[in-house]
Amino acid sequence: MNHTAMDPTAMDHTGRLRRLQASLSGHKLDSLLIAHLPNVHYLCGFTGSAAALMVADRGSILFTDGRYSTQAKEEVHGANVNNVNIVIARKSPLVAAAEWLAAHGRSSTPASLRPVSVGIEPESITAGMRDRLASALKGKARLRSVPPLVERARMVKDAAEILRIRRAVELGASLFRIARRKIRPGVSEVEVAAAMEYEARCAGAEGMSFPTILASGARSAIVHGRASGARIPRRGFVVCDFGVILAGYCSDRTRTVHVGRPSGEARQLYEAVLEAQQAAISAVRPGVTAAEVDGASRRVLRQRKLARYFTHSTGHGLGLEIHEAPRLAAGQAQKLEPGMVITIEPGAYVPGKWGVRIEDVVVVTSSGCEVLTPTDKELVII
Amino acid sequence: MNHTAMDPTAMDHTGRLRRLQASLSGHKLDSLLIAHLPNVHYLCGFTGSAAALMVADRGSILFTDGRYSTQAKEEVHGANVNNVNIVIARKSPLVAAAEWLAAHGRSSTPASLRPVSVGIEPESITAGMRDRLASALKGKARLRSVPPLVERARMVKDAAEILRIRRAVELGASLFRIARRKIRPGVSEVEVAAAMEYEARCAGAEGMSFPTILASGARSAIVHGRASGARIPRRGFVVCDFGVILAGYCSDRTRTVHVGRPSGEARQLYEAVLEAQQAAISAVRPGVTAAEVDGASRRVLRQRKLARYFTHSTGHGLGLEIHEAPRLAAGQAQKLEPGMVITIEPGAYVPGKWGVRIEDVVVVTSSGCEVLTPTDKELVII
Repeated sequence: MNHTAMDPTAMDHTGRLRRLQASLSGHKLDSLLIAHLPNVHYLCGFTGSAAALMVADRGSILFTDGRYSTQAKEEVHGANVNNVNIVIARKSPLVAAAEWLAAHGRSSTPASLRPVSVGIEPESITAGMRDRLASALKGKARLRSVPPLVERARMVKDAAEILRIRRAVELGASLFRIARRKIRPGVSEVEVAAAMEYEARCAGAEGMSFPTILASGARSAIVHGRASGARIPRRGFVVCDFGVILAGYCSDRTRTVHVGRPSGEARQLYEAVLEAQQAAISAVRPGVTAAEVDGASRRVLRQRKLARYFTHSTGHGLGLEIHEAPRLAAGQAQKLEPGMVITIEPGAYVPGKWGVRIEDVVVVTSSGCEVLTPTDKELVII
Repeated sequence: MNHTAMDPTAMDHTGRLRRLQASLSGHKLDSLLIAHLPNVHYLCGFTGSAAALMVADRGSILFTDGRYSTQAKEEVHGANVNNVNIVIARKSPLVAAAEWLAAHGRSSTPASLRPVSVGIEPESITAGMRDRLASALKGKARLRSVPPLVERARMVKDAAEILRIRRAVELGASLFRIARRKIRPGVSEVEVAAAMEYEARCAGAEGMSFPTILASGARSAIVHGRASGARIPRRGFVVCDFGVILAGYCSDRTRTVHVGRPSGEARQLYEAVLEAQQAAISAVRPGVTAAEVDGASRRVLRQRKLARYFTHSTGHGLGLEIHEAPRLAAGQAQKLEPGMVITIEPGAYVPGKWGVRIEDVVVVTSSGCEVLTPTDKELVII
């Protein structure tokens, strides 16, 4: 009996690699050098911090270094990923891969005169590394920048991934209870964040998916206001934006609470952002562009004369990384497809005064979307 | 009265920028585009996640995006960094900087015929970004890869930086007390890590400087064995490798404890690694190469027939980043200088069986080094 077949969260590394291999010839590639670590993780399960994965028709090779020899065997071979060999390199895994290609790479087209063509991910290697790779290949192969093939595959999540994200979102959501309990005037922002992060760790999270944002009072106007030593004032908004990594997958959630009695103006701001968020969620369905979803929330805030205070995009994909494609922003023509998992998180920030953001994670379904985050979005007053 | 002159941990951004500006003409550069975020932080104090800093003789411009307009003003102008303008871009800050250069950049050499020369950090921008920058410049300036000027400056820490690192190391060291209290047979590795991380946060750390390593039993042979759900066995080593970020600066410390009575062989392994670590510390002084320090620890382990189990380098610089230059490894010709702050962390790992690592942070002084980490290194038995 196959162990992995029993586990609904087991990753289909073999299928992912096979589909990528099958696409190589269509891009006129003999092999593809994967340098982006989340892509390596996605394709073969390896989670170490130094890796290059060479994917070719004939099979794949994971290059890593001596620190990871045990871990690589456990993660790649332990997960029954077929046909991936492991090479422990004494230098940069990418350079080792290029030298291997210079020594062993041959075009898979017999008797072909065309040079061996090696694809690289131009957004995932440094300019300096591209120069070193070219020189390591010694003219025996040509580097070709390719479109983000793996990122595109990763945009649409399979059932096992959605299950993992669902669990991460559930754990992440539970941390808001801690925040509600801890947020009190005079308590420092980091104390609240620390309590949330402790809970996340004890519940099995590998870590937070980004530095916890806890921005109180006038700091709530700082969009990425990491939890600081500032003490929560007696009255004002507190933006809480936080997420966990659980079994490799990220969650992301924002709630804004109000300490003390909110003014009418504060309530109006909150209601406007909530309405914008609901408008964007309602716009999510297959075939709609990412820009249209962004436009839906922006339209509401424009009607409320708040558009200029909404200084970021409406959302982003998430999965193995906290920010993935698609990006929900003006001009983004990417159409939504079932299985995409995205955040919906409009906000409004008046510099020096206050800010509000509300964020859920949704999965695109065949007819619309399912909101994975628990939907308690009334203004919480503490 | 100047506020910053009162604070011994205040960063000398103005001096750093001035020295970098003064070095441009020697590299035949009209301006330098800084893309690496820790370098931006080092030069002007900005800590946001999207930034490009254009440094030129005539002054500098920080490009960031709308999320950071408030934060950029606070961090850059609030810290009295002279002569840095802030531009809020609607696109990638780097591309915005290149477009600004295409529109405004002129060679500082009047009537010069040579093209405007813009330095880039080839290890800090992606290959794709270099292509986009070249096209944004529209032939009005030429990109030139430059040596890691800022990384070199960052290698030698000034007094304010050493004070910040000292405080980070002290906070980091205090977490080992938590580990000693929490490590018990049957407790999961992440529970121990969570307690340490909670303490760090409450004490003011911005976060951990890397995912906490807590590797027990046979997992201690995994060099980068992040804290997992595994339960600490009744007998065996537990490698604890952890660090904090405090006021921007990293700490890094490893201690290996033994749960239950250690065998004679376990004690021998521990003593060998400790001796190797002390040999490396004794080798640290100005003028010695990084490779020589690495050789000192490797020699001890070779004498004990353990060299093949020491699968990583002896240490690395640390500061704003957890891994900085210099790298203490074979072949590294970089000479040590007073003010460099480095880790000394040999280890030995027998796959499937056990592992030991011992690590301190030291600062190179005029005559040798000072160990910043408290020096309790007897084998702790729990």
